[in-house]
Amino acid sequence: MASTDHGGGEEVIRNKQVFLNDYVSGFPEESNLYLTTSSIKLKVPEDQSGKDAVLLKNLYLSCDPFMRGRMQRDLPPDRPELSSYSLGSPIVGFGVGRVVDSRHSDFKKGDLVWGRMPGMTAYFCFFDIGSPKEGDRVYVSAASGAIGQLVGQFAKLIGCYVVGSAGSKEKVELLKTKCFPEGIDIYFENVGGKMLDAVLVNMRLHGRIAVCGMISQYNLEQPESVQNLSAVFYKQIRMEGFAVYEHYDRYSKFLDFVLPCIKEGKIVYVEDITEGLERGPAALVGLFRGRNVGKQVVKVAQE
Amino acid sequence: MASTDHGGGEEVIRNKQVFLNDYVSGFPEESNLYLTTSSIKLKVPEDQSGKDAVLLKNLYLSCDPFMRGRMQRDLPPDRPELSSYSLGSPIVGFGVGRVVDSRHSDFKKGDLVWGRMPGMTAYFCFFDIGSPKEGDRVYVSAASGAIGQLVGQFAKLIGCYVVGSAGSKEKVELLKTKCFPEGIDIYFENVGGKMLDAVLVNMRLHGRIAVCGMISQYNLEQPESVQNLSAVFYKQIRMEGFAVYEHYDRYSKFLDFVLPCIKEGKIVYVEDITEGLERGPAALVGLFRGRNVGKQVVKVAQE
Repeated sequence: MASTDHGGGEEVIRNKQVFLNDYVSGFPEESNLYLTTSSIKLKVPEDQSGKDAVLLKNLYLSCDPFMRGRMQRDLPPDRPELSSYSLGSPIVGFGVGRVVDSRHSDFKKGDLVWGRMPGMTAYFCFFDIGSPKEGDRVYVSAASGAIGQLVGQFAKLIGCYVVGSAGSKEKVELLKTKCFPEGIDIYFENVGGKMLDAVLVNMRLHGRIAVCGMISQYNLEQPESVQNLSAVFYKQIRMEGFAVYEHYDRYSKFLDFVLPCIKEGKIVYVEDITEGLERGPAALVGLFRGRNVGKQVVKVAQE
Repeated sequence: MASTDHGGGEEVIRNKQVFLNDYVSGFPEESNLYLTTSSIKLKVPEDQSGKDAVLLKNLYLSCDPFMRGRMQRDLPPDRPELSSYSLGSPIVGFGVGRVVDSRHSDFKKGDLVWGRMPGMTAYFCFFDIGSPKEGDRVYVSAASGAIGQLVGQFAKLIGCYVVGSAGSKEKVELLKTKCFPEGIDIYFENVGGKMLDAVLVNMRLHGRIAVCGMISQYNLEQPESVQNLSAVFYKQIRMEGFAVYEHYDRYSKFLDFVLPCIKEGKIVYVEDITEGLERGPAALVGLFRGRNVGKQVVKVAQE
């Protein structure tokens, strides 16, 4: 996380950055992160070190659950985007920024650039693994989060019966008793643990479980146990994990679907916007306590 | 289970049958079953009650894990082949028999008839869900059983690296440490519980778990818990349950593959043959203690 802040004339400005104190086990706390202010030149270096470089002013930063993973020590380095954060560098994630200077032929000053958005994850995980069709009974956990809120809308667009839950324990009870008297065709899994266990006994024959995340498990030293897995056998359930980085080549397919929906107002999106990079650490760790309502972003600069 | 036994001249013979005493919870014991001897006429009735009927002399009966399911009380009646056994009728299963009399146009006296064999389950569950290809690392649990022994051979035929386990606890330990230093591509699941938990942490990216059964769980009041399910998410694993009765229409496809293999000696099959229906109950309950080596059958008549 980093933000630029005009304050030292045209050339040199103050630049805020968020670092990790030390690697985390258990729930991450605000105290695991700290903010520093340094200064940078508002210009891509003219020597070899700046070849093909782009300098951005960050406008929005995204707080995502996968960032918890990167706070762990000794992750394998084979997938750099999922490896352990370096303690000596600012933590990184996705966001939206404005090009301030560029020596790259694809970008010029004033361009807006952005990293991947959770919509693509929601789209491909739901449609590829869930194989939804009209009338299917769909249950979405963490349904007010960045991904869940979209899955619910996608499911409604194609005529599914949809129930979402947000929060946790009392919702498991609700699920067991009320919402799906005839069972669940598709479970869009964001939560894991006890929630998954409760869902398994409520799945229908040939149900699909699209595993997009298991946020309830990321901070536990000992994962919660699941006892009802034999349902996978008895009901011929298909359960499959999903990682969006394997589907970047289909980005345009996602846009073809989602952009008209947004323009026509068929898809809306709830964001939980925190103002100022100083509040970024609280926003990030709040994800794992379920403090956000909607997609958590940090607005780091006004335009 | 029933056998005919010539002993009363040409028309009326003694007929042995196995009944269930009462519905079972926990491990089935030999004492849950009892044998009776009655007498029957060796002729299909000539009135309306015998229309399209076939009378068989059973030669071999098959002991299968699904029969444990049917010993349970109050199973839903919607799938008759998986519903609760009736306490007033002999327990039923698959087998091989000889037609003794027939009023059905498709069968005549002397024909051999048989129920489905576990080979078809092994074949479609492995190929459909496992999607095996040359070089895949395949792990088969209950590998000396009726299905596991075939899966291992199928996998070898297409050039997979195969490890099978039979027994239980010590094999889980072995699996963890030795056989798959680079992880497992396909797990053919017959066992469930702790075995599955150990396998999950050893699966490779995009691994497939073909869930053909979970025999370690069928007799437990409280199923064993699984803690490593987040591997499904982290490694984008696909896990899917299988039921052979949904694939009967592809029986000829299975035969096209397996018959030449058997003729050429590329597939061999180990049977654990118990002699006499009197020993049938012991053979059947022995399945759930892992007493059989190979496919458990009961030979009920000599020809």
